[in-house]
Amino acid sequence: MRATGNRSSGIAAHVLVNKGLNVLLLEIGPKWDRNTIFHTEHSWPYEMPFRGLGKPGQYDGLWKVSAYTEHLYVHPRDGGDLISAEIRAAQELGFRFHPTRGSMSRSQKDGGLPPDSVVQDDDAVLADSERLVAAFHDPSPASMLRVALAPCSPFSVTPALMAATAELAERLDVRLHTHLAEDRDEDEYCLERFGRRPVDQFEEVGWLTSRAWVAHCLYPDAPEITRLGAAGVGVAHCPSSNMVLGNDRICPVGDLRAAGTPVGLGCDGSSSNDIASLWLEARTALLLGKVRGGPAATTSRDALELATRGGAACLGRTGEIGELTVGACGDLVVWAADPIAHAGALSDPVEAWLRCGPGRARETVVAGRVLVESGALTLTGVDDVLARHRAVAARLQGA
Amino acid sequence: MRATGNRSSGIAAHVLVNKGLNVLLLEIGPKWDRNTIFHTEHSWPYEMPFRGLGKPGQYDGLWKVSAYTEHLYVHPRDGGDLISAEIRAAQELGFRFHPTRGSMSRSQKDGGLPPDSVVQDDDAVLADSERLVAAFHDPSPASMLRVALAPCSPFSVTPALMAATAELAERLDVRLHTHLAEDRDEDEYCLERFGRRPVDQFEEVGWLTSRAWVAHCLYPDAPEITRLGAAGVGVAHCPSSNMVLGNDRICPVGDLRAAGTPVGLGCDGSSSNDIASLWLEARTALLLGKVRGGPAATTSRDALELATRGGAACLGRTGEIGELTVGACGDLVVWAADPIAHAGALSDPVEAWLRCGPGRARETVVAGRVLVESGALTLTGVDDVLARHRAVAARLQGA
Repeated sequence: MRATGNRSSGIAAHVLVNKGLNVLLLEIGPKWDRNTIFHTEHSWPYEMPFRGLGKPGQYDGLWKVSAYTEHLYVHPRDGGDLISAEIRAAQELGFRFHPTRGSMSRSQKDGGLPPDSVVQDDDAVLADSERLVAAFHDPSPASMLRVALAPCSPFSVTPALMAATAELAERLDVRLHTHLAEDRDEDEYCLERFGRRPVDQFEEVGWLTSRAWVAHCLYPDAPEITRLGAAGVGVAHCPSSNMVLGNDRICPVGDLRAAGTPVGLGCDGSSSNDIASLWLEARTALLLGKVRGGPAATTSRDALELATRGGAACLGRTGEIGELTVGACGDLVVWAADPIAHAGALSDPVEAWLRCGPGRARETVVAGRVLVESGALTLTGVDDVLARHRAVAARLQGA
Repeated sequence: MRATGNRSSGIAAHVLVNKGLNVLLLEIGPKWDRNTIFHTEHSWPYEMPFRGLGKPGQYDGLWKVSAYTEHLYVHPRDGGDLISAEIRAAQELGFRFHPTRGSMSRSQKDGGLPPDSVVQDDDAVLADSERLVAAFHDPSPASMLRVALAPCSPFSVTPALMAATAELAERLDVRLHTHLAEDRDEDEYCLERFGRRPVDQFEEVGWLTSRAWVAHCLYPDAPEITRLGAAGVGVAHCPSSNMVLGNDRICPVGDLRAAGTPVGLGCDGSSSNDIASLWLEARTALLLGKVRGGPAATTSRDALELATRGGAACLGRTGEIGELTVGACGDLVVWAADPIAHAGALSDPVEAWLRCGPGRARETVVAGRVLVESGALTLTGVDDVLARHRAVAARLQGA
């Protein structure tokens, strides 16, 4: 999906939702014109009938509602320092957070998708990236916050900014994130504009490295899968989003993993998926894997691995998070067995986890702090924030 | 899927689960040999690691746990009167129930799939069908129980029994149910054995009538869709099951409905789907519809219609159930808005219903009786039954 509309497409959603939080995705983006661009459902989120959000400059307070945007690539003029706001929210909530400094530099007048009002020039992007890394990035083990750099997609970022971002990430030793091979249009766009396919272009700008993980990755061909795997590029599989957007191909998760690619799960954002439920993404990944490769192609344990170790590996944190081993952080999520839904589910709780339900995390412990207890956030003040959110949403929706 | 294994494939699961019940699917079936038959996950349910069930004759007590098998087509010798047992359970629980008298008559020695031990001869099937209709079927408006006749599939029932069943249903004025066009093997099997495609064979035995509704129906071609629609044959779309079984085609829900076919939702049984959640089936139908037809192909209101009026129409109960109109039964399900998951979901609760969540029904009222209150069954004695169920499951699983 070559959306210029918002999507927080990433693995960090996995981290957040795996911690049991109900997530409000606060997002911004230009109006999606289905007639001129693509037959899909994109629009300003605050124009969507079921999820409201303020216009740029009107975010005050909203982000406190466990607001979370992993891939924040839309930086409207006069929009304020949105990424610092979401970082403060994450710190208040207490989850491990991997915000990515997104960017768009190629606007409609230059043949890109986004309007001028949300693009920035290369220097501004790079300077702000460096500022955020200096201010917030913590490379130490058990870090609660690491910043990654994340130009949006080939449709909205110049090759020069892609290359400069990769160089900056190398210099600062931070990770790289972007969209890759999300839809067929991307093949055509890259062939037409760059004379090569998306993965070739990805390599051309210096991104074919284990420092990078990408969202979606539905359309690589077999040789490209081999190259991505050999380089150790990670993939955030976003099954619900891919289905909502009607993609005609399924992410080749099994082939990618066999080639050496770490694959995690992403929820994507409200434009294509309003449920930031990692349980649902894991189940959907299980089912979509079977649709792609037959009934034996994907198991519940594969899905569990995507949801835990796979995501950790995409974030460069193997052995730190996503597993309970000596030396790991020891973050915990407790999934309760429902007396009736899980009746008889005795010998294989992993199968039961995805086959019975639907489920939500009951307890969540991050860095020794209980964030969710008996299914409820332990954070205080949520009701107040929800009341403010409701007022803003009602105003925007005219409801 | 030409399973001889159990699957309670039907629309009645819709009725049951739409009433908010957590459903235990108690099922039986022959050992599925993945090496000789099909690469899938079928096995005796009590051999499955996550869901236990007694062997034939050992059902005592289990069915009280809201046990429900809609399409009970496996009648093992000395297995007892299973369908009467499930009917008594449904009466105790208080939901409107549409049990179907399933049957299998073509065993392995005759080129069918099931073993000899679970097939019956035509006379026995027809006599028992007539007995059950006489004993339990209530054709009156607002009926709590209607029996339908339901030979299993072309793989396990002779054409003679299919035809005789259709004639009996006509004479008794009850509905007909079976599997149709669930997988590609069915095309091959029917062409080879009957010299015609499944829908042609379906017509040949007198089933192309609005008295019939069928499970799955993934593989009809365009002219067949037109014929099914013109005849008013109903379809129970079972999206999760189809995905779990790795079907390489998606039920053409939109085309079927456009042709005049009522389409409802089914959960299928534990062999292919352990979650009897109509919410999840409705969401999955929404997403699969978009995969098949593009992002604008299916809306949440389409999915709601499948889950309510569509199912009612399949059961021949338009205007009675599945809607709140003057003269309808007035059964109610209450879906609560989660303060965080549904925050901002103000102006379109139907979109929010499937896009936010995951959700479970909170209250359920059937025929004026509250069956579920604050998410819990009002039925007494559930804990005792669950304890017995657990003991049996533990014994069977060696857990």
